[in-house]
Amino acid sequence: MFQTFEVTARPEQGPPRLAALRERMAAQDLDGFIVPRADAHQGEYVAARDARLAWLTGFTGSAGFCVALADRAGVFVDGRYRTQVKAQVAEVFTPVAWPETTLADWLLEALPGGGQVGFDPWLHTVREIERAEAALEGSGIKLVQSDNLVDAIWDDQPAPPAAPAKAHPLEFAGEAHGDKRARLALTLVDAGQSAAVITLPDSLCWLLNIRGADIERNPVVQAFGLLHADGSVDLFAEPTKFETLHDHLGPDVRLAPVGDFLPALEGVTGTVGYDPDTAPRIVADTLGARGARAAEPCALPKACKNAAEIEGAAAAHLRDGAAMVEMLCWLDQQAPGSLRETQVVSHLETLRRRDNGLQDISFETIAGTGPNGAIMHYRVTEETDSVLQDGQLLVLDSGGQYLDGTTDITRTIAIGKPPDEACAAFTRVLEGMIAMSRLRWPEGLAGAHIEMIGRLPLWMAGQDFDHGLGHGVGAYLSVHEGPQRLSRINTVPLKPGMILSNEPGYYREGAFGIRIENLLVVQQADPVPGGDAHRKMLDWRTLAFVPIDRRLIVTDMLSTDARTWLDAYHREVATKIGPRVTPAAKEWLDAATAPL
Amino acid sequence: MFQTFEVTARPEQGPPRLAALRERMAAQDLDGFIVPRADAHQGEYVAARDARLAWLTGFTGSAGFCVALADRAGVFVDGRYRTQVKAQVAEVFTPVAWPETTLADWLLEALPGGGQVGFDPWLHTVREIERAEAALEGSGIKLVQSDNLVDAIWDDQPAPPAAPAKAHPLEFAGEAHGDKRARLALTLVDAGQSAAVITLPDSLCWLLNIRGADIERNPVVQAFGLLHADGSVDLFAEPTKFETLHDHLGPDVRLAPVGDFLPALEGVTGTVGYDPDTAPRIVADTLGARGARAAEPCALPKACKNAAEIEGAAAAHLRDGAAMVEMLCWLDQQAPGSLRETQVVSHLETLRRRDNGLQDISFETIAGTGPNGAIMHYRVTEETDSVLQDGQLLVLDSGGQYLDGTTDITRTIAIGKPPDEACAAFTRVLEGMIAMSRLRWPEGLAGAHIEMIGRLPLWMAGQDFDHGLGHGVGAYLSVHEGPQRLSRINTVPLKPGMILSNEPGYYREGAFGIRIENLLVVQQADPVPGGDAHRKMLDWRTLAFVPIDRRLIVTDMLSTDARTWLDAYHREVATKIGPRVTPAAKEWLDAATAPL
Repeated sequence: MFQTFEVTARPEQGPPRLAALRERMAAQDLDGFIVPRADAHQGEYVAARDARLAWLTGFTGSAGFCVALADRAGVFVDGRYRTQVKAQVAEVFTPVAWPETTLADWLLEALPGGGQVGFDPWLHTVREIERAEAALEGSGIKLVQSDNLVDAIWDDQPAPPAAPAKAHPLEFAGEAHGDKRARLALTLVDAGQSAAVITLPDSLCWLLNIRGADIERNPVVQAFGLLHADGSVDLFAEPTKFETLHDHLGPDVRLAPVGDFLPALEGVTGTVGYDPDTAPRIVADTLGARGARAAEPCALPKACKNAAEIEGAAAAHLRDGAAMVEMLCWLDQQAPGSLRETQVVSHLETLRRRDNGLQDISFETIAGTGPNGAIMHYRVTEETDSVLQDGQLLVLDSGGQYLDGTTDITRTIAIGKPPDEACAAFTRVLEGMIAMSRLRWPEGLAGAHIEMIGRLPLWMAGQDFDHGLGHGVGAYLSVHEGPQRLSRINTVPLKPGMILSNEPGYYREGAFGIRIENLLVVQQADPVPGGDAHRKMLDWRTLAFVPIDRRLIVTDMLSTDARTWLDAYHREVATKIGPRVTPAAKEWLDAATAPL
Repeated sequence: MFQTFEVTARPEQGPPRLAALRERMAAQDLDGFIVPRADAHQGEYVAARDARLAWLTGFTGSAGFCVALADRAGVFVDGRYRTQVKAQVAEVFTPVAWPETTLADWLLEALPGGGQVGFDPWLHTVREIERAEAALEGSGIKLVQSDNLVDAIWDDQPAPPAAPAKAHPLEFAGEAHGDKRARLALTLVDAGQSAAVITLPDSLCWLLNIRGADIERNPVVQAFGLLHADGSVDLFAEPTKFETLHDHLGPDVRLAPVGDFLPALEGVTGTVGYDPDTAPRIVADTLGARGARAAEPCALPKACKNAAEIEGAAAAHLRDGAAMVEMLCWLDQQAPGSLRETQVVSHLETLRRRDNGLQDISFETIAGTGPNGAIMHYRVTEETDSVLQDGQLLVLDSGGQYLDGTTDITRTIAIGKPPDEACAAFTRVLEGMIAMSRLRWPEGLAGAHIEMIGRLPLWMAGQDFDHGLGHGVGAYLSVHEGPQRLSRINTVPLKPGMILSNEPGYYREGAFGIRIENLLVVQQADPVPGGDAHRKMLDWRTLAFVPIDRRLIVTDMLSTDARTWLDAYHREVATKIGPRVTPAAKEWLDAATAPL
């Protein structure tokens, strides 16, 4: 099994480790030290070696940081983790509501007389440190670069990941890496840069058509890259990772040990581009005046999938959909009160594993029943594991990493007979999800401009949900991928080939959760008779085909357009998935996809 | 009559004036000179004296500028004016598509060897010059401050406006100017500013509860102001303007001639705030290091209307609505083919003038029939005046300036029997207009986040329109007022008390135009049973009550929600406006507001 249910936080380990860190701080004349969740590649998941925040504090959330001072230690966590952090850390740590309280806000209050606060310049982005420095200016508090003091006290710290990388077949990548390099090199020439720094593992993997196993859930290789204006690349990584890939990479991709990365930056003549939002601070410091701020060169090209990537994603979704249909059929055969959340997670993974192409799950499956469904980023553990009871809703959010694509799908399932208000909210969420799926919009708009349509039915009922409507998804890469997002703060124009999730929800704390999610891909819209001939418009192609629970729909509340869409969608689910499942599941599917 | 129909552009006057300007440029060793449409107060309308662009080039649009060089002269106009400019300027002027081509783009091409381009530092904002300077850096082209060379050659240039200002009664303003000054002074103290510059006439009028007649359509006084951190104000204007207002203004508002404005800026000690998007360049230059960029201090407080202003606007809309109903009734009595656009404009103004409170129209009435309706900013002249023909749509967009409020309303009226496709498009526009009117949304969102709902029905049919959904409106002030806007580029959160227009449209070039517009005011939404108790939401109160042409509605296309809203709206129109109109209009109104 990929997923485990153990409780990894051990609050009692925190105090002695914090004491050891403070000794180190004192020895180096530091008044504080910052321990982020991040690694040098700013990945959403980190390797065991980089789980410094969890090791020090016990807090296992996917974002945040700790600032240790001599007399206090703040653990900064966002809204998702306010409850979790209290359960995971010992009393020597003080949870801080972030980003409402920033690093600088907290330091200004904690160190009124000023002081020296250390940080590891590999683990913080240029922008992050710059913002804090600006806010601390004139306060007498200085952020100073230092060795990593956690590494210094972590005796059994795991080694850096060193899994061998693999070539990603052209059949799935759709474009040779030489062509990608040449295409991007032109943008460097246009920008007057002699090279560009690449520190994001999924960017490097996309650029060179490679995949890896350094980090769970994300098929990436951890490495640093330098793309030159002639299209060649210097790749800095543990040499073992690329031993079998010399032929695939060819002579224009030069391999070097990680330790050569900074000296190579020093050696480049001319302007070198870097993205201040993703590159570690040490990159900017090393480049000095030769550094030029620029958008990450791979981000937008990677987001706009080519035909092979789109067809790969579609194919992966059909196989993944078959596993989901088997799962939903099996779930309906279990009596309310007979099944636990962990069994749901395990059975779903077992079904996905029947596909030999499954490389990993694409994130920890969320299976939350009743009140657990209202916890947006719930991950079941042995301690929280709950029985699916009659009248509850089960939120099941999961996905797979296949060689041809990454999936991410959420269905909300009735356990027995849920209450009317849950069904009414489900119908509103569904109406919004369908409105976005049906949408057609003029070119040039971004997530911020169209996201509301997925929330509108909830708004009109005085309801809403506190997460974005959707995120970008990679092509057998990260399940969360920028720069596009269906979020009110995202103004990157949507372009054909971008894959995004469409996942409105509703959460009633202590009672129930609802989320319905399909992945969609942006495409040029076909012209409508009578439409404006000169106007280019976009719409969505739906990738996911899994039934939506008809038992939770209040049919009278659904608009005619939504009902027509849903019936047509269900017909397509039956046609596409029916031939791929067992006879029992086929029978279940036919009933589940009958017209409303 | 406020409105006239004369053709003011005289293309043949341009060439000799341009020649005279070039002589002046040569005498001052300038290779070019910039002539903007703007005045020193960046108003949308300018006084006759400030109509330099029209005087020089013949172009009478409400935005744009001319750059005169020795061998060419570009007239920069935006999308609204591409056709108009060609008809209005002589061949010595070259229309330039702006903002696609910027001032700097054009200069870089026109002056490859570099050069000195003069500008009047009173007529350009800080940001405008700064952007151009940044884009020209290193090119050898310098922007240099100069006297206004158009003023130097314009022999019969009108004098600056000097209309006396009037006190705006507290009954309508709702807050004494001393209280406003004290309230804003606190924000200056918070920002560490000893004073703030105010150059926008509507800001000064709002702050001091005064109104004026310096500019047509906008009841403002042209003056400069300096708000001090103690709540006092220095007001710089022609002394005649305030002769009768000493008592109203009181001892804390000190009057001085316009010429004292710059010396006063030089004399202030401490930091002085100014808004780089509205203050003239000369303000920043005069303040030097003491200047601090800040938001215009009155903009947001002015936009959030108090109870007296909202009730004033509502009352003005009832009287204005009665005039509109008389108008629509009269229009229906005229046979197709019997009426010209100018007669429509004149009769509507006559009806509005029956209200003794009417101070002015709030902008030039747009009355466009058939193809003229597709010209978004159409203003009828003797030359374009067209007969309302059977089968056409008439777009009628107009408003009044009343002491208690500013109105702006658009109705589209069937002349005879319009074609089906026009009725279908009208129904989509109406569906979007109603969706916005009905909307309820969470606090914190801006126009960019909700504007799409007014376009959605058009999008789904492959259609759209090329203007924003709505603009802010003042309280007996400018009909276009910031900072709020229903536009995809506006991210100022909507707040209770903000008045905005809701005006979706559709334009088929050469055929017909459609626009439906009501003014709305943002308010706290009442809770919905079953809604999220912790979530604060906003919705709209509609201010305008005028029937929407039922003959243009394809009832079957309208959603049930929209139909319910429209029938309820029409009931309210009948109740509110019925008692205010003549018996004939009352009879017409009862039929026009019958349920669909």
